[in-house]
Amino acid sequence: VRLVKTILFNRGVPATESFAFSEVAAAAGDALRAENPALLQYGPSLGFAPLREWLAAHHGVAVDQVILGNGSLQLLEFLLLAQGRAGDAVVTESPTYDRTLTLMRRHGLRPVGVPLAEDGPDLARLEAAFAAEKPRLAYLIPDFQNPAGATCSSDKRRRIVALAERYDVLLVEDAPYRVLRYRGTEEPSLFSLAPHRTLQMSSFSKLVGPGPRVGYMIGPAKLVAALAKVAEDTYICPANLAHGIAWEWCRSGKLPGQIERLKALYAPRLDACLRALAEHLPEAHATRPEGGFFISVTLADGVTTKAVREVGLRHGVQLADGEAFFPNGGGERFLRLPFCALTPDEIAEGVRRIAVAVREAASARAAV
Amino acid sequence: VRLVKTILFNRGVPATESFAFSEVAAAAGDALRAENPALLQYGPSLGFAPLREWLAAHHGVAVDQVILGNGSLQLLEFLLLAQGRAGDAVVTESPTYDRTLTLMRRHGLRPVGVPLAEDGPDLARLEAAFAAEKPRLAYLIPDFQNPAGATCSSDKRRRIVALAERYDVLLVEDAPYRVLRYRGTEEPSLFSLAPHRTLQMSSFSKLVGPGPRVGYMIGPAKLVAALAKVAEDTYICPANLAHGIAWEWCRSGKLPGQIERLKALYAPRLDACLRALAEHLPEAHATRPEGGFFISVTLADGVTTKAVREVGLRHGVQLADGEAFFPNGGGERFLRLPFCALTPDEIAEGVRRIAVAVREAASARAAV
Repeated sequence: VRLVKTILFNRGVPATESFAFSEVAAAAGDALRAENPALLQYGPSLGFAPLREWLAAHHGVAVDQVILGNGSLQLLEFLLLAQGRAGDAVVTESPTYDRTLTLMRRHGLRPVGVPLAEDGPDLARLEAAFAAEKPRLAYLIPDFQNPAGATCSSDKRRRIVALAERYDVLLVEDAPYRVLRYRGTEEPSLFSLAPHRTLQMSSFSKLVGPGPRVGYMIGPAKLVAALAKVAEDTYICPANLAHGIAWEWCRSGKLPGQIERLKALYAPRLDACLRALAEHLPEAHATRPEGGFFISVTLADGVTTKAVREVGLRHGVQLADGEAFFPNGGGERFLRLPFCALTPDEIAEGVRRIAVAVREAASARAAV
Repeated sequence: VRLVKTILFNRGVPATESFAFSEVAAAAGDALRAENPALLQYGPSLGFAPLREWLAAHHGVAVDQVILGNGSLQLLEFLLLAQGRAGDAVVTESPTYDRTLTLMRRHGLRPVGVPLAEDGPDLARLEAAFAAEKPRLAYLIPDFQNPAGATCSSDKRRRIVALAERYDVLLVEDAPYRVLRYRGTEEPSLFSLAPHRTLQMSSFSKLVGPGPRVGYMIGPAKLVAALAKVAEDTYICPANLAHGIAWEWCRSGKLPGQIERLKALYAPRLDACLRALAEHLPEAHATRPEGGFFISVTLADGVTTKAVREVGLRHGVQLADGEAFFPNGGGERFLRLPFCALTPDEIAEGVRRIAVAVREAASARAAV
């Protein structure tokens, strides 16, 4: 019996070997030895004040423009609760982050997907959606998009902001991967282009790790205050102990070094994935991101992601459902490949197994 | 100018001087130095496995009966999302914890309050509510109730369970103060009497502190699994870093000593409050709890909490709204006194100021 270890090509998680345990331990010790009661007590629902202040300075905004949460996803839920009414349309890219779609639907909102190209959403379709649906908000991931690996061009960003202005749409910019650019030039954030109508969400999940659950939103102070009310009613205050540790870690200057380490760890993984795709799946269309966690692949005609997933399991590779990322259907041949938590060797072998599964699924289909 | 420091008699928070900073720092260091990736990585939405295992052993239940959350309040919201449908009746004591009422209303549920006596809810009214309203669930705080300071008698607990059985009502037992009994004998928990139809919620907020946000629910495995699904959709997983620190603190045997320290700190505060009430407000009816955080006072006829609050502010004492605790009206003369976060001297002075405010409010009213 030959045992093959399954390669998990389905989870958008950071690499375990990226975790800076000793730095976090030092930050925890320093924070707790200072005996600041705010670490262990209830506090404002906006979150641990020193970390809010640090983030405000870091992003060049006022403190009342920053709210902390236990991961950024839940802050998005607070926004949906504060702003959404059941039946409202909300615009997203298509594909988009599936957990966002789940939250929107849970609150009775109606996601309207706008097709996403490698340089950002289709602007004609975006305008049509704004005009026809009068959405409350548009949820976009301009940098190294999850799941597509697309990055919105500078030109498209400016035009998205102009459309949001014309149709009076609130922009929600999800930016957890933004600082993880392995090459190329940074594009302006939507928040920098339209701070009065953008909420930018981000977190420490892809930098320090998701376990502390440190997410945040920056945006117009009035909106931030509305989120804080929902937050208070939900959990009184976020996880002050972990947020205090994150603050100690930030203020002692650890963030830049960690970002450099992550880039050094992840850039070769991106390259390994692109190389393996060119070698083993040349007929499929793959995005070519310059950062982040994800490459996406559109399989050639004649084979579905569903079939490849099933066959792939027998060949020791686990893949995510493609269709779940598409708010209004589609994605039958869409494959998301998160490359950060696998070594270059695992990536090469994983893509090889995917290619085997693609051929097998294609020939099984041809035989029917 | 004589400056009077306002006494905050309105916040049900633990005493800052109860925080075991050095113990928590040691636990954080030990936990992080072990480099368990689960502390910094995403994990199961049920929560950090070692703490679930520790709590399961502590409570004598199976591991799949335990779910962790970022404080227990939010786990209650998950239950409302999993089980409630807009318009459903949910039974509570009257008065009850106001944040619970807020959450219930946010999800369109209809709280039906059953009058609470010092030995627990009025059973005839409880049965009438069960029969008339067919509630999804009944939310009860049997031990050292927030806000009343009432503790349900052993006999009433058994009859509540029998009624829940007859009318097929899920019991939600909120028990964060249960282990903080300063005198007298422990009553059986609802969970121990009816484990198949009870979810017991508790947390470390009143033991270690609220800042780490470590709450949990124990109950039937199938219900716990339903909560885990809602949790995953909401925040992926709870705050593993803080929960890992709490686990390290628990497994190194720190909980019993901390509980003893809390009892030694809080028992004299309870006594100081009861003494001051007997001395300064003999005409008001006060509950006489044997533990927990709260004494409640029903003011004598002729004066309202609202008036006393307003006058009290001028005399340097801040009080909570009484009516917010009552789901269907009432509470005009209800005063909650959280005594744990004030020193015995502050308590004595605070109650004296309340008594001054009561006299002033009463004579202002008589003069109208």
